[in-house]
Amino acid sequence: MNLPLGFRYAATYAGLRKVAKNDLALIAGDQACSAAALFTTNLVVAAPVIVARENLRKSRGRVRAWLINAGNANCATRTGRKVASACVSATAKALGTKANEILPASTGVIGVEMDAQKVVKALPGLVSALSPDKFDDVAQAILTTDTRPKTAFLETKGARFAGLTKGSGMIHPNLATTLGFVMTDAVASPIDLREALRSAVERSFHRLSVDGDMSTNDTVSVMASGASGVKLSAQALKAALTEVLQSLAMQIARDGEGARKFVTIDVEGAASEAAAERVARAIANSPLVKTAIGGADPNWGRVIAAAGYAGVRFDPAKVDIDMQQVAVCRGGFAADFSEADLTKKLGEPECHIRFTIRGKGRGRARFWTCDLTEGYIQINGSYRT
Amino acid sequence: MNLPLGFRYAATYAGLRKVAKNDLALIAGDQACSAAALFTTNLVVAAPVIVARENLRKSRGRVRAWLINAGNANCATRTGRKVASACVSATAKALGTKANEILPASTGVIGVEMDAQKVVKALPGLVSALSPDKFDDVAQAILTTDTRPKTAFLETKGARFAGLTKGSGMIHPNLATTLGFVMTDAVASPIDLREALRSAVERSFHRLSVDGDMSTNDTVSVMASGASGVKLSAQALKAALTEVLQSLAMQIARDGEGARKFVTIDVEGAASEAAAERVARAIANSPLVKTAIGGADPNWGRVIAAAGYAGVRFDPAKVDIDMQQVAVCRGGFAADFSEADLTKKLGEPECHIRFTIRGKGRGRARFWTCDLTEGYIQINGSYRT
Repeated sequence: MNLPLGFRYAATYAGLRKVAKNDLALIAGDQACSAAALFTTNLVVAAPVIVARENLRKSRGRVRAWLINAGNANCATRTGRKVASACVSATAKALGTKANEILPASTGVIGVEMDAQKVVKALPGLVSALSPDKFDDVAQAILTTDTRPKTAFLETKGARFAGLTKGSGMIHPNLATTLGFVMTDAVASPIDLREALRSAVERSFHRLSVDGDMSTNDTVSVMASGASGVKLSAQALKAALTEVLQSLAMQIARDGEGARKFVTIDVEGAASEAAAERVARAIANSPLVKTAIGGADPNWGRVIAAAGYAGVRFDPAKVDIDMQQVAVCRGGFAADFSEADLTKKLGEPECHIRFTIRGKGRGRARFWTCDLTEGYIQINGSYRT
Repeated sequence: MNLPLGFRYAATYAGLRKVAKNDLALIAGDQACSAAALFTTNLVVAAPVIVARENLRKSRGRVRAWLINAGNANCATRTGRKVASACVSATAKALGTKANEILPASTGVIGVEMDAQKVVKALPGLVSALSPDKFDDVAQAILTTDTRPKTAFLETKGARFAGLTKGSGMIHPNLATTLGFVMTDAVASPIDLREALRSAVERSFHRLSVDGDMSTNDTVSVMASGASGVKLSAQALKAALTEVLQSLAMQIARDGEGARKFVTIDVEGAASEAAAERVARAIANSPLVKTAIGGADPNWGRVIAAAGYAGVRFDPAKVDIDMQQVAVCRGGFAADFSEADLTKKLGEPECHIRFTIRGKGRGRARFWTCDLTEGYIQINGSYRT
């Protein structure tokens, strides 16, 4: 797969993590790029999110680089703004550009002061290491509790897209979740990108849930270098971005903290897409559904109970539910199925729940999540210590 | 503790559970009693809830008995209404009263047909076993994944109250949660009871969360026999009912599925009580907060992050957080505390989180939950099978 033209990448160990694993990454355009980004809607916002939002506005969406660190969220820290600004200034200096063309992003523990000097010291080496082919190094460096890197690539009509993301816990669909970066060499204005990003996130990162917790640092961004010379239609740009972000979102669900199973939920027949999404989200967020899937238990009663508190009107007597393509509920009642066979099928690593409301409703939504296992508890009972 | 006058109790094994443990219980007034009840707000409603609601309306709040079974929720079942009505009719016949003076309640698995004949056959024996002192038998018979019975007693101004409840998982605060029954020998009209119950539930069962899942069968009811001859003021009735229901709610949190720790969350300084409650609920429902408590990790960053997505406006720079009476966050930033000492304190079975917003806000709310442990996963990965 060819990477988009016009970008260079680098990663290094700056000492922000306790373990000696790369924790600082740079994604830089050869020139200033068009950029758009969506940020957390949490009221408690990390300093890098505040600075990135400001710089994106000041630069009017013309951006040179993302500086990303793992190991410290730089959130709820006394020196947060100062640290984020110092990192941005040092990056701008090293790249020979203006500070407001640099966007910072951080992930890691909340409430621990971050040492800007570690980043400042690492920057000259990081910048001199920039290379068009170190994309995978960045994808590795930004991970926290993830067990594997998450990348997606697409080529359409001569324009290339490459995306990378991190995220495993504190994943909630109601925002641009975690850190995600997509680079493309398509020609696009910041406004084009913003519109395409909003729409693409709606059907990708907003359809994803691991634990229903919402981070303070979430950032999803797209940068377009224009280096391919290809101008895509708004429709094609949106479609490409949606495909890349959906792939990344599914990878996050697959790598959910402690997850053994990837779960796809399809809701059909709702009054609207928004209504379908609410039902799908309630099912995806239900700890009882997620533990039942973990235990390979075809407990569809928990599915219909979760749908029932989604805040969407429907007639329970018109509900059909399928698990692993097996009819488990028809018209709100138990269907005739072999529990032993279905339990076996639910042992597979890919699970599917279809929730259909009979009638004329056209609203449908697909949602991704994972099972809830002892692993999630173990990881989060001792993340900091 | 003296039980309220005017009530008799009985429990038996009707064969609804797989294990031979009492699964059918009757709470009967010697005469018709004043009664009020709150039911689940889930759109998917079990048949006994529908029938109980109807009968309560038809009888204008003058009720003779609650018939309660565990082992089957009689929800999402083809024969649900018919089964609930048959059970009610048989009870009315055995007690020599009208069908609409009998209220049914069920708890257990969803989507499995319930055999009314088992209940009908058990009823004559159940009625003849009715006795004023078998309160504890009822408290035992209605349990499902609970590890212990939950009861509360109160005597005020010569009127007695006795409450019992069940519930361990599928516990969400936004409704009258699980099954709960309070008997009193105070003199009160159905309207008095209804008003007192609404207010009391608001500050008891609505302030409780185990897993954020909402059941299809939830019912909380109060019955007044009037046998003491004591008429309490509206204020005193409300206070007594609140105290009994708070005790029951705390017992549910203590016995949350897999719980090792009981967690009290106090939010202070919010703009209103409703705002304080939303913040407290977001903290209580956060899987990351709950796993951190489970792991004795003083990870206050997760607490402030959860508050940040509660949908309530506040200035993060004005937030103080205490865990186990230790200052962990002051003005939105880390306080200076010994992590080792606090980790030790968080190892205790009672945990306390105080979230204070500095300023003039007077809104405060107390909320109860428990930690999230591997035990919850194990119980719910194999509840049905």
